Formats: sequence, C-alpha cells, structure tokens
Amino acid sequence: MSETEISTLGEFGLIESLTRDFKVKNASTLRGVGDDCAVLNYDGKRVLVTTDLLLEGIHFDLTYTPLKHLGYKAVAVNLSDIYAMNGTPRQITVSLGISKRFTVEHINELYSGIYAACEKYGVDLVGGDTSASVTGLLISITCIGEATEEEIVYRSGAHDTDLICVSGDLGTAYMGLQLLERERVAGAGQKDFQPDFAGREYLLERQLKPEPRADVIAELRELGIKPTAMMDVSDGLSSELLHICKESGVGCRVYEDRIPIDYQTAVMAEELNMNLVTAAMNGGEDYELLFTVPLPQHEKVEQMKTARLIGRITKPELGAYMVARDDTELEIRAQGWNAFDNA
Amino acid sequence: MSETEISTLGEFGLIESLTRDFKVKNASTLRGVGDDCAVLNYDGKRVLVTTDLLLEGIHFDLTYTPLKHLGYKAVAVNLSDIYAMNGTPRQITVSLGISKRFTVEHINELYSGIYAACEKYGVDLVGGDTSASVTGLLISITCIGEATEEEIVYRSGAHDTDLICVSGDLGTAYMGLQLLERERVAGAGQKDFQPDFAGREYLLERQLKPEPRADVIAELRELGIKPTAMMDVSDGLSSELLHICKESGVGCRVYEDRIPIDYQTAVMAEELNMNLVTAAMNGGEDYELLFTVPLPQHEKVEQMKTARLIGRITKPELGAYMVARDDTELEIRAQGWNAFDNA
Repeated sequence: MSETEISTLGEFGLIESLTRDFKVKNASTLRGVGDDCAVLNYDGKRVLVTTDLLLEGIHFDLTYTPLKHLGYKAVAVNLSDIYAMNGTPRQITVSLGISKRFTVEHINELYSGIYAACEKYGVDLVGGDTSASVTGLLISITCIGEATEEEIVYRSGAHDTDLICVSGDLGTAYMGLQLLERERVAGAGQKDFQPDFAGREYLLERQLKPEPRADVIAELRELGIKPTAMMDVSDGLSSELLHICKESGVGCRVYEDRIPIDYQTAVMAEELNMNLVTAAMNGGEDYELLFTVPLPQHEKVEQMKTARLIGRITKPELGAYMVARDDTELEIRAQGWNAFDNA
Repeated sequence: MSETEISTLGEFGLIESLTRDFKVKNASTLRGVGDDCAVLNYDGKRVLVTTDLLLEGIHFDLTYTPLKHLGYKAVAVNLSDIYAMNGTPRQITVSLGISKRFTVEHINELYSGIYAACEKYGVDLVGGDTSASVTGLLISITCIGEATEEEIVYRSGAHDTDLICVSGDLGTAYMGLQLLERERVAGAGQKDFQPDFAGREYLLERQLKPEPRADVIAELRELGIKPTAMMDVSDGLSSELLHICKESGVGCRVYEDRIPIDYQTAVMAEELNMNLVTAAMNGGEDYELLFTVPLPQHEKVEQMKTARLIGRITKPELGAYMVARDDTELEIRAQGWNAFDNA
C-alpha cells in the first residue's frame, strides 16, 4: 500500500476524494455532502443535518478556555450551520469522549454551557453517547433543524450581479485567539500571573463564546430579503467566498474598504504587527453569515443593521478578487485554517 | 469545586445526572434521551436519530481490527439502534479524528467499510466533519431513520405476561474478543507469529463485522408481529433486560436453557475456563434484538427463524431473575461493559 500523508490533500481534499464516487440511494436524501448541512425530505418538510467535531489540542486549549464556554461554543458552531441554510435549529445530540483527568464537576460545567446555548436558541438535547477516552476531551455534536423547501438557501445559488453581504465584523475571533495565546505564553510557569485583557473583552468573547447569527436570519425575514446563496464564515472570508464562487459557478469582487473590522481588532493587529486585512479575510471562527442577494434588493440591504454590503458577484471568467483601497486587484486565495497542518 | 470521579457514576449514571433536569421545548421532539433513538415529529413522519462514538484504545484495537471492518462495524452499530425502534435507517453522518500515523490509504480502507455497510443496508452518507487528532483514531457516526407513528417500538411498552424473545445467539462477539486478545498476547513481539483462528471464524466475524438485524425486523413484519418493547443487545442481555423492566415498570423471568448460544462460543468458553452463561448474559456487542410480544402471539413467535422465546414479562414486584437449569432463581444484575472502568 502506498502512503500519502493526509496533509497533502487537506480536509476538503480528503472529504472530496472520499465522497465523490458515492451515489445517494434514498428519495429522502435531497442534498448530501458539500453544503453547510445535508438536506433531507421527510413528508415534504425539509430536515437539515449538520455535525461538528471539537478535539482538545486541535480545536481548543483548556488552559484558557472555560469548560462552560466550550460547551456553549460547541453548540453555537452547529446552530450556525443550520442558520446558514436559512433553517431553524431544533435538536442536538452530544457525544463526549472524556479522559481520566476530568471529574463529574467538570462535565457538569461543560453541560451548563451546552444547556445555556440550547436554552437561548430554543434547541432540545435529544441524545448522544458518552465514553472514556485515552487522552483529552472530545465533543461531537450533531444538530437537526427544519425549513420549508422555499426557505432553504444553498451555497450554489449566487448569480452574476448579485450583491455580496456579510454580517458583524471579521477577524475578531482570530485576534481573540492571538491575545489568549500571547498571555498564555507570557504567564507560563508563573504562579500568580494575571493576564491583561482590559479593553479587549470583545475579542475574547468572540473567540470563546461566539453567537450563531439567528438575528441576521430574523432581520432578513423582516425585510423580506431571501438570499440567493449563503454560508457561515468558519474558515475565513476568503475560503468561504471561494466556496460560493465554485458551487455557484461565478466570480466575485469584494472591496477592502467595505470589509467590516472592529476597532479592537485593528488595535490588536497593530500591536502584534499583523496585517489587518489578512486577519479579517483569513482569520476564521467568526461564525458570521456571508450571503448574496439579487441586485434589485439593493435598497433593502442598505437598511440592514446586522449586515453590510462588501462586494458583488461577477461572471466566472472574471475570477475572485479583492479590490484594494488603491484599486489594485488581489486574487483571493483560501488560507483558511487546516486542522491537518496544525496537528 | 469538589471532585467526583466519573467511574463512580458510570456512563448511565452520568448521562442521567446530566439530562434529568432538561425540559424539551420543541413540539417536534417526541422523545429525547433514554431509548435506542430520539424520536422527532416532522410533519407527521417520525424521524429517528441515534449516535455512537468509537475511540481507539477504548472501543477498538487496530492490532487486530482491519480498518475496513472497523468502518463497517461503526455504521452497523448505529443502524442496529434504528432497527431496535422498528425503523428504517436512511442517512448517516461520519465524523473522523485522525492522528498523524494514518495515511490517505488508511482512511480509504476505513471508508470502503463504511460504504459497504451503507450499500448493504441502503443508507446514504450525507455529511460529517474530518479533523486531525492528537492521538489515535476516533469515529463519531449519527444515523437518521424513519418510521410511522404506529411502527415505532419503545423500551417502555412491555406488559405483564408478554413473551420475551431474542434473535441470533449471545456471547459470541465477546468470545471473539477473548480469542483475538489471546492471540494478540501470544504473538506479542514475535515477527512471524500466525494466530490460530481455525474453526473459530464465526466468533471473529461476530466481533469484527457484526450485522444489524434488518432480517429480524423483516420477519416480524412478514408474520404480522409487532413487539410491545424492543432494544438491541449492545451491553449484554442482563443490562438490556433491566432497561426494559425499568422503562416498562415490569419484572421478568428468563430461562437459562433457552438462552441461545452457538457451539463455537461454548467450546471457546470451555477452553478459556469461563462461565458460558455469564458470557452469554453479560458479553455485549452482539447487536441482536431483544423484544417482547403479547402472549396471544405465542404461535407466531414459535414460527420465527431469526429469534426465539427466552422468557416472560412479570409484574414488577416479582423482580428480574434468570431461572437456572435446576430451577433456582438468580437475580439479574447489569454487569455490562463500562467504558469508564476500562480506560
């Protein structure tokens, strides 16, 4: 047997190589691998399914992640995928692998965060599996949501001339992670070290306790806007724009001066001597919603409080570029986070 | 914070303590934690959801488990939970955590088993998540199935005088594991060691490549038998009988001389100087179906090729006992496998 390192394919390449030859057999399977959620048809109602795996040492570091926040985030990232299809999350299952260093009290803390997220977003915990693990903590959550056929928004529906919008601000969760890492290193080995987070609370909150953007979905409905394509920003804006362009068979232009960036993110980038736009385009874990709307809905989009216009969809032959402040065009490349590079 | 070791509660105790105060909020959640599957109501159709986590070093040992078989088994154990509710499995999601020692070719092997099980049981792979892991392989599978309201069989429906039946034979997968362990120890450190499995193939097959009992469900339907309660035997017959008794508020008597045991299992128990009935009652991982049927269906049950009568349901005050060959009654206790004791 020949040996190919998984990092040569990356996560997306691996999934594509594993799933491309598989043909679905059930009439109830409308959409399998390849979007934020699978879409199933049960007696007309659309059932959405998504799943996320969080592993200690890969996705989270318990030296600075409170277990309650971790539980909350593990649920939030799944709900985000359901909202990204314009659906409503209803149920989750939670599977845990727990090594010997965790006590019942630790797991209660984790669950208090899981339940807080369930409570806030009206979701029921309906099952799971719990096991010992050899090392570390692992959390595997599957979320089930619903939508009508008319409501569902895929990644593949963007058309030439559509407007591109994104909610909230970008790069914030990434900067929160940089801050946490800096303070962890600074405090290593010091017993009474107090990390300095004053004035940076928003960065930490976005990294440790992200909120799925149910409010964006609500505002879109209030204004009568139905996106043509949508996904959540988990791997970074660049990566997600390329997904939408590929799935929809289109190109795009986004404008550097339109990318939403919070003041704290900018200050932190300055302090760390990092390129701010690179962080915002590639940071990841923001769990904002990226969506496209038809050009005639321009005025409605301008009224949105939760999202802003950042660019437009083009014909595919025009490629995917960011237009810089000086009008030069920079090709968008996926530099999103790859778990297989970091292990 | 006080510190309570998780092993003091065990898996069932931990899940109960975590979930008992949680109230479901959605009308679509008919049944949450506590049966083989959650039961959801989407426009009248019942959607069943179950999930299982398999961890290297806890649930499987790759020194004797071929990756293809592991993939097959990981799917099979989930399908078994759907059949145990009298449902039909339709979709699965597969999440993998993969450490650096695995190559693309390894993961292809694992997936060939996953796909083989999907193919055989008509199930679609519709999503998942793939990540690097710090150590070892982990597989988290969620299965979605369907049933009508009338079809679903819970653990809680057994009544006094019902007949107790079980499919196939018991203790076989456990003896397969003992055999594999014996040969692993015997061969440790020897380069050209050939394990001796001659005449024991059935034990290995039951351990390494269990089949969910779709055929039992089909036979029940053909004969017009609808069980009053059902579950799959994953933790051992004793443990599962106690679940049904507790959930249904009943007692039971099972007869030692009716417990189905294969010849190879008996020979192996003799060789290893183990108590055969203990192995059959507590072995686990058989993935047979345990079910109860109303007494008037006695004649129909006797016709079954895939299952046999092993006892009867009693009033709760009579407790749960096995009637030995000499007519003494032995109280049934759960000695099922507990991941938290073995880690």
